[in-house]
Amino acid sequence: MLPTASTRQPATGGSVSLAAQFMATRQLLETLLEPLSEADATIQSMDDASPAKWHAAHTTWFWETFLLRDRAPEYRLFNEDFPFLFNSYYEAEGDRLLRRNRGLVTRPTLADVLEWRAHVNEAMLPLLDDPAHADLVTLGIAHEQQHIELLLTDIKHALSKNPIGPAMWNTPQVAKPQQEDGWISHPGGIARIGHQSDGFAFDNEGPVHRALLEPFALSRRLVTNGEWDAFIADGGYEDHRLWLSDAWAWLDRCNIRKPLYWHDGEQFTHCGWQERDPDAPVTHISYYEADAFASWAGARLPTEFEWEAIARGQDTPDSDAAFNASAGNQLDHAAPPQPVGTSELFGDCWQFTRSAYLPYPRFAPAEGAVGEYNGKFMAGQWVLKGASCATVRGHSRASYRNFFYPQQRWQFTGLRLAKDL
Amino acid sequence: MLPTASTRQPATGGSVSLAAQFMATRQLLETLLEPLSEADATIQSMDDASPAKWHAAHTTWFWETFLLRDRAPEYRLFNEDFPFLFNSYYEAEGDRLLRRNRGLVTRPTLADVLEWRAHVNEAMLPLLDDPAHADLVTLGIAHEQQHIELLLTDIKHALSKNPIGPAMWNTPQVAKPQQEDGWISHPGGIARIGHQSDGFAFDNEGPVHRALLEPFALSRRLVTNGEWDAFIADGGYEDHRLWLSDAWAWLDRCNIRKPLYWHDGEQFTHCGWQERDPDAPVTHISYYEADAFASWAGARLPTEFEWEAIARGQDTPDSDAAFNASAGNQLDHAAPPQPVGTSELFGDCWQFTRSAYLPYPRFAPAEGAVGEYNGKFMAGQWVLKGASCATVRGHSRASYRNFFYPQQRWQFTGLRLAKDL
Amino acid sequence: MLPTASTRQPATGGSVSLAAQFMATRQLLETLLEPLSEADATIQSMDDASPAKWHAAHTTWFWETFLLRDRAPEYRLFNEDFPFLFNSYYEAEGDRLLRRNRGLVTRPTLADVLEWRAHVNEAMLPLLDDPAHADLVTLGIAHEQQHIELLLTDIKHALSKNPIGPAMWNTPQVAKPQQEDGWISHPGGIARIGHQSDGFAFDNEGPVHRALLEPFALSRRLVTNGEWDAFIADGGYEDHRLWLSDAWAWLDRCNIRKPLYWHDGEQFTHCGWQERDPDAPVTHISYYEADAFASWAGARLPTEFEWEAIARGQDTPDSDAAFNASAGNQLDHAAPPQPVGTSELFGDCWQFTRSAYLPYPRFAPAEGAVGEYNGKFMAGQWVLKGASCATVRGHSRASYRNFFYPQQRWQFTGLRLAKDL
Amino acid sequence: MLPTASTRQPATGGSVSLAAQFMATRQLLETLLEPLSEADATIQSMDDASPAKWHAAHTTWFWETFLLRDRAPEYRLFNEDFPFLFNSYYEAEGDRLLRRNRGLVTRPTLADVLEWRAHVNEAMLPLLDDPAHADLVTLGIAHEQQHIELLLTDIKHALSKNPIGPAMWNTPQVAKPQQEDGWISHPGGIARIGHQSDGFAFDNEGPVHRALLEPFALSRRLVTNGEWDAFIADGGYEDHRLWLSDAWAWLDRCNIRKPLYWHDGEQFTHCGWQERDPDAPVTHISYYEADAFASWAGARLPTEFEWEAIARGQDTPDSDAAFNASAGNQLDHAAPPQPVGTSELFGDCWQFTRSAYLPYPRFAPAEGAVGEYNGKFMAGQWVLKGASCATVRGHSRASYRNFFYPQQRWQFTGLRLAKDL
Repeated sequence: MLPTASTRQPATGGSVSLAAQFMATRQLLETLLEPLSEADATIQSMDDASPAKWHAAHTTWFWETFLLRDRAPEYRLFNEDFPFLFNSYYEAEGDRLLRRNRGLVTRPTLADVLEWRAHVNEAMLPLLDDPAHADLVTLGIAHEQQHIELLLTDIKHALSKNPIGPAMWNTPQVAKPQQEDGWISHPGGIARIGHQSDGFAFDNEGPVHRALLEPFALSRRLVTNGEWDAFIADGGYEDHRLWLSDAWAWLDRCNIRKPLYWHDGEQFTHCGWQERDPDAPVTHISYYEADAFASWAGARLPTEFEWEAIARGQDTPDSDAAFNASAGNQLDHAAPPQPVGTSELFGDCWQFTRSAYLPYPRFAPAEGAVGEYNGKFMAGQWVLKGASCATVRGHSRASYRNFFYPQQRWQFTGLRLAKDL
Repeated sequence: MLPTASTRQPATGGSVSLAAQFMATRQLLETLLEPLSEADATIQSMDDASPAKWHAAHTTWFWETFLLRDRAPEYRLFNEDFPFLFNSYYEAEGDRLLRRNRGLVTRPTLADVLEWRAHVNEAMLPLLDDPAHADLVTLGIAHEQQHIELLLTDIKHALSKNPIGPAMWNTPQVAKPQQEDGWISHPGGIARIGHQSDGFAFDNEGPVHRALLEPFALSRRLVTNGEWDAFIADGGYEDHRLWLSDAWAWLDRCNIRKPLYWHDGEQFTHCGWQERDPDAPVTHISYYEADAFASWAGARLPTEFEWEAIARGQDTPDSDAAFNASAGNQLDHAAPPQPVGTSELFGDCWQFTRSAYLPYPRFAPAEGAVGEYNGKFMAGQWVLKGASCATVRGHSRASYRNFFYPQQRWQFTGLRLAKDL
Repeated sequence: MLPTASTRQPATGGSVSLAAQFMATRQLLETLLEPLSEADATIQSMDDASPAKWHAAHTTWFWETFLLRDRAPEYRLFNEDFPFLFNSYYEAEGDRLLRRNRGLVTRPTLADVLEWRAHVNEAMLPLLDDPAHADLVTLGIAHEQQHIELLLTDIKHALSKNPIGPAMWNTPQVAKPQQEDGWISHPGGIARIGHQSDGFAFDNEGPVHRALLEPFALSRRLVTNGEWDAFIADGGYEDHRLWLSDAWAWLDRCNIRKPLYWHDGEQFTHCGWQERDPDAPVTHISYYEADAFASWAGARLPTEFEWEAIARGQDTPDSDAAFNASAGNQLDHAAPPQPVGTSELFGDCWQFTRSAYLPYPRFAPAEGAVGEYNGKFMAGQWVLKGASCATVRGHSRASYRNFFYPQQRWQFTGLRLAKDL
Repeated sequence: MLPTASTRQPATGGSVSLAAQFMATRQLLETLLEPLSEADATIQSMDDASPAKWHAAHTTWFWETFLLRDRAPEYRLFNEDFPFLFNSYYEAEGDRLLRRNRGLVTRPTLADVLEWRAHVNEAMLPLLDDPAHADLVTLGIAHEQQHIELLLTDIKHALSKNPIGPAMWNTPQVAKPQQEDGWISHPGGIARIGHQSDGFAFDNEGPVHRALLEPFALSRRLVTNGEWDAFIADGGYEDHRLWLSDAWAWLDRCNIRKPLYWHDGEQFTHCGWQERDPDAPVTHISYYEADAFASWAGARLPTEFEWEAIARGQDTPDSDAAFNASAGNQLDHAAPPQPVGTSELFGDCWQFTRSAYLPYPRFAPAEGAVGEYNGKFMAGQWVLKGASCATVRGHSRASYRNFFYPQQRWQFTGLRLAKDL
C-alpha cells in the first residue's frame, strides 16, 4: 500500500499540489454528506457496508494515526475513544468496534465528526508540502478516494432497504448511450504488467512483471441492461449448465433471479426508483452472474492481464490509442453516480475479470500497519478493472486492481466480454 | 385486549378526563424524544428492540388505524406508506416491514413523525369525549403507555452498544434503599383472580376466575445487587444443579456470567455507566437467572396467582393494607428510570413468577385485529407482575400480566422470593 | 424421579416379581433390535433422536451406574469408555459425548452392546429381589420402558429419512375404528391431582395437591385423520387467526403444511409407506398444530388437571367407570406400533394438554444425579397425558406427565378436544 | 473430464489392459471395505465427507449411468431407486438425495451394494475391450480411483469423531524419513503446462498452454511435523501478520490452533491414535495454514506452474532427472495410508500451491453430464499438486490438478516451500 515509486509527479495531474489534492478530496467527501440527515449518515444496512459518518471518521482516523500520531510530535489525539471506534481492520492498531455494530454509534454525532475533520485538516497543513511525507499523503488521498466510492455505494444500499425508496438527489442522470459495438483485438505475446510509472500506486499493483498472453479480443463496450433482460428471458438464471457450483447454490439460497436493485422495469438509484434504460450498462451484478452471462453469450471474461494490456494500448495494432484512465463516466463532484454508456474503458462500471485476486510474483506487503492494506485480502476474491461512475476521477489507472468476493453486488460492477482469437 | 368493562370511571384517577389522559400520554412520549438525536431515535440494536422513532410512529398508526380510519369517515391517511412501515405484528392489517429492518427507516424523519403525531392528535380531539369510543380510546392510551416503557428500554439497549457508553440524561437517580426485610404470609384458600373492577383491563387479565392457593409467603422486598454479587461469588453461574436444562445451555451458548449491563462494579444506565448500589434491586435478569437464584437462596418464585392475591390484600391477615398499584418507583415524567429500592409491590422492577403465560379459563381474544394483542403470544413466555421504574404511573394493576421469553433481559426485570408455609 | 412411595406392590400387576419385570423389559428392548441391521441401529437422524444401539447401551449404563457401581461393591465396569459414551444428560455424572454425535459411534458394535447387556443382567440378578433396592430397580424399569418408546419413534424417524422408505416390519396393523362420539362431562370442583397410590411414580407426578376445576367436558375420542384432512382443506394452515405467534413463524420457517410423515394419501409407518385411514387417530402433530386445530374446531385442549380428573373417574357422574390405564392400544411385544382408534383414554396417541410443564406445588427433585431426571426440564415444554401405541403396557397411569417442546412431532402425539360447560 | 487424447496406450503402465485396470480398481475399493462394519460403512461425519458404502455405490452408479445405460441397449437398471440415492452432484442427471443425508441410507445394505457392484462388473465386461468405449472406461477408472482416496479420508474422519478412537487397521506404518534438504532451482522462462502425452487426463488439465516463469527454487522435501511444532511454539497461530484476513477470522471462529487430528504428541491415523514422528511430513492442514507457515518460514508456496515445471524436469539444470509420478508413498493395496517422508515429488501429501483453481486458457468443459466433472468447481478453491499416501499409484501425473477450499483439512494435505531466485 505504500507508494511504489516517487510521487514527485502528482498522480492526478501535473500541476496540482498535494495540498490542493488533499483539500479537494476532503471537501468532496463532506459535500457528499450534505444531502444526508444525521440518521441517514449513521445507519448500517449490512455487514459489508458502513455508515456514511463512519467513512467520514475512518478517513480522518487514517490521517491522525499514520501521519499526525507518528510524524507530528506535538499532535494530541482529538478524542481518545475515536481510534477504537473508527479503525477498520488494522490488527496492528489494536482492538476495534465489531464491524457489524458500526451503525449503532450515534455519538459522536455527525457534527462532532466534522469538527474532528476540520481539526485534522488544520493539523495536516504543515505536513502536506514536506516531501518527506509525500508518499504517505498520496496514500492517504487515495485511501480517502476509495472511501468516497464506498460511501456512495453503502448509502445507496441503506436507502434501498427503506420501502419508500428515498432519493439522495432528485436529478437523475440522463443516459446517453454512445457505446460502440465491436472488438479490440490483441495479438498476444509477453506484456509488462503492473505499475510502471513514477506516480503513485498501491502495493498490490506491483512488482512489475511479465505475463504471457494468447491472442484475444476485448469488447468495445459493456454489457447492457437490455442484454441482461434477454439473458433472463432465455432462462439464464434457471439453466444450471451456465453456473459455477458455488453460484448455483447461492442462487438457490438467496433466491437470486435478477441484478441487485432491479424491480420490474425499474432500478433503484441515488435518485430513488427510476425507469431502467435498456441501452445503459448493466450494473450491481456478482462475479457469479457475470461469469454465467459470459457463458450464455458464448464468450468469457477477460483476465486481468488481458484487460491491462488493452488499457495500455501498447502492441495492440488495431486498437485505439491507449485509453485514458481519466476519461469516462467517473465522479467529479457531489452528483448522483449512474452508468450511462460510453466508449471509454474506465468508467460506468468496474469490470469483472476471470482472475483471482492473488499476489504478483515477488509481492511483499509494506512493513507495519499499512502493510495490512491489501495483501491480507488475497484469498477468495476476484479482480475488477477500470473505474466506475462513483470512482473519483484521477483515482484509477491501468494497473489498478479492485477486488470483491464473488457474491457481492452492491458496488457498481459490470462486465465487458472477451474471447479467444 | 378490548376493555372488559365500562370505562366510564377512568382507570387512572377519578377526575381525569380521557381527553386529558390522551394528551398527557402523547406528550410524555414526545418529551422522552427530546434528549435524542435524529440518529439516536432511528437505530435498532437487536430484533427484540425497536427505534424510538418507530415507537412514536407505531403508536400513532394505532390511533389512525383503529380509531380514525374505522370511525372518522372524513379522515384521510396522513401518508399512504406509513401503515406498511409502522404496523407491528397485526397480521389482519396486512403486510409490513420486516421487524429487523426497522432501524433502516431514516425517512420519514423524526420531524415528519412528529408532524404526523400532531395531525392525528388534532383529528382525534372530537372523538375523545364520545362515550361510543371510550373503550378504544382507553385501550389506545394503555397501548401507548406500553410503548413508552419499551421506548425507554430499547434506547437503553441501543446506547449500551456504543463503546463510549453515552448518557441520555446526566442526572442519575440516587438510590434510597427503604426495603424492609421479612415476609408477607398468606393462609391459602380460594382466591378470585383476574380483573374485577369497572376500570379498563387487557383481555388477557380475564375472565375472572377462582384459583386455589396453598399457604405461602412472599418477600417484602426485591432481591438486591448485593445478594446477586453473593450468588456470583458462590459460583452460582457454574453450578448446574441450580439451572434448568435450557438455561444451562443458554449460559454456555451466550457466555452469560452476570446480569445484562453489568461490568465490574458498574452498570449501564440511562445516565451512562454508574457505580452499582449493592442495596438497590437487581435488574435486567432473565427468568432463567431468577429461577436459579431462587433455588440457590432456598426459596422459589411465586405463582402469578399468589402474587396477585397478596397485591389484592384480601384475606391476607398479617399483610399491610392492600397495596396501591400507583405507589412505588414508576414513571411520572421524562426522567431516567432506575430501580432504587422501596417497600412497594408495584415499581422498581417487573417481578418474575413461575407461571407460564397461558390463557385463563374461558379466555377468548377480542374479535378483529385488536384480538391479536395478547392471546397469540400465549406460548413459551412467563408472567411478570407489578410494575417497573419505566412503567407509566397508573398503567398497572393487580391483575396486570406482563410476559417475556425466559432468556430476555433488556426490560427492567427483577425478582421477589416466595416460599411454602 | 425416585419412587414416591413403597413399591412393594409392583406397579404393573399384582403378582409379577420385580425380577420378572426387569427381565421382561430388558428382553423386549432386545427383541426390538432384531429387525435392525448394524447400520440401522447406529444412525442418528436428528439431534432430538438417538440411535437404537444407543438406547440399548444407555439403559444399561443406567443400571451399571446407579445400581451396580453404587451398590454392588464387587462390580467392575464392563468398559471404562462406556460411561462417557452412554451418559445422556446427567451433569453430575461428568463429561459425555455431544448429543449430536451419537450416530458416529460405530464401535462398540451392536454385538458389544448386547454382550454388555447380558453382563449387566447377570450382575443385577442378586440385587433384584432385595427390598433395599426395590425403589431404584422399579425406577430403572420405568426408565428402560421410556427408552423402548423412544427407540421406536427414533428409528421410525431415521428410516423415514431414507428416500426408499424402508420397513422395519412387514405386517401393518389393521385399523379397527371403534371410537365413540360424544363427551364426558365433569361438574368441576376441587380435584386431587398427582400420584396417590402405593405404586411407583416419577418425582414430577407429585406431591399430591388440590386443583380447582370449572365444569367442562372431554371428548370420548381422539381427533382423526379425516378431521385433519378437513382442517387442511379448510385452509387451516393458512389462517393466521388460528395460530399462536410462535407457531405462525414456525409454519413459515419450516414450511409446515401437514403432519409429520404425511405424503399425499399415505403416511410413513414402521411398515413403510401405508395408505392413511381417515377414521384412525391423527398422530405426529405438534402442540402448535393441536392448539390451532382445537381453535378451528371451536373447542380447546384440556388442562392436565381436567384430563387427570376424568381419568380417575371420581366425581364424574356421567362418565364410564374409571378408565383403566392398562387398557387401550399400547405396546405388548415387538410389533409395529400404529394408532388404530379405540374408546380408551390410554393408548394410540399421547394427548396434548394446554398445561405448561411446570413443577407441582412443593415439588422438589430427588437428591443426587437421579434428581436430574425431570425437574430440570420444566421450562418451555407442554404436558401430554395418556399413553401411545408405543408405550409399554403397564408403564402409564392417571398421574403420568409426558412432556415435549411445542414444535416436536416425532412422538406418537395426538389430541382429544375439551370444552367449557 | 473426457480424455483429451487417445487412450490406446494405457495410462498406468504399458501392458496392462483396460479390463485388468478396471477389475483391479473395482477390487481395491472392495478390499478397503473389509475392515469396516456395516455401521462403519454407513455413517457420515460431516457434509464434506461421504459414507464408505456411498462411495462403493456412487462409483457403480457412474458405470451404470454413463456406460451401461447409454451404451448397452440391453442393460436394465439394477434398482430404480439407486440413481436418486447415489448421484453425487450431476444436475443434468436429475434430482438426488441431499448430500448431508447420505449417512441415513442404511438400506440398501452393504451386501446389496456389493451385489450391485458384481452385477455391474459383469455387465461391463463386454464393453471393456471395445475401443469405442476406451475413453469413458478410462475416465471411469480414474473416477473410481478418486473415490478410493476419498473413501479413505472420509472414513478416517468418521472414526476420528468416535471418542474411543477406533482403528481400521492395526499395523501402523513405520516412518522412514529419507527427506533430503536443499532446493531444486529453475531458471524461469516459458514452460509448457498441461497434459501433453497420449495418455488419459481430466479436462481441467488442458488445453496445453504456455506459462512464463521467473527464476525460482522448490524445496526438495515436505515440511515436517517437527517444523510445525516450532511454528506453534513460536506463536504462529497467534500472530495476525502471518495470516490472510479470511484465515484469521477462521482461526477465531473455529478455534484452530493446530493441524486436524493432532492431540498433544499424538495424531489420529487409520491405526488409531499414534505417536507423532517429528521427521514425518505434516499433514491435514488447510491452505490458510500452509500459507501462514510459508510466511513464517520466510518462503512462499509455489504456483501450480512452477510445481509442474519441476515435475517435468525439462530445462531444470540442477534438478534430478524428471520425477516419476508413480514413485513415492502412494496406495498400492488395502493398507493404512500415512505420510512417512521420502525424496519423491509425488506421494505422502498433496501439496498446496498458491494458484487459485481456474480454467486454463481456451478451456471448455465436455458436453453433457460428464462436463460437470471439473469446470463448475472453478471458484474459490486452490490447486494442489502431486499425490498422497492415499492416492492409487498410477493415478497422478505432472499435469494433475487437485483442488480444495482453503479451510478444508481432511485430505492428506501438506506443503513444500518455494522461493524466488
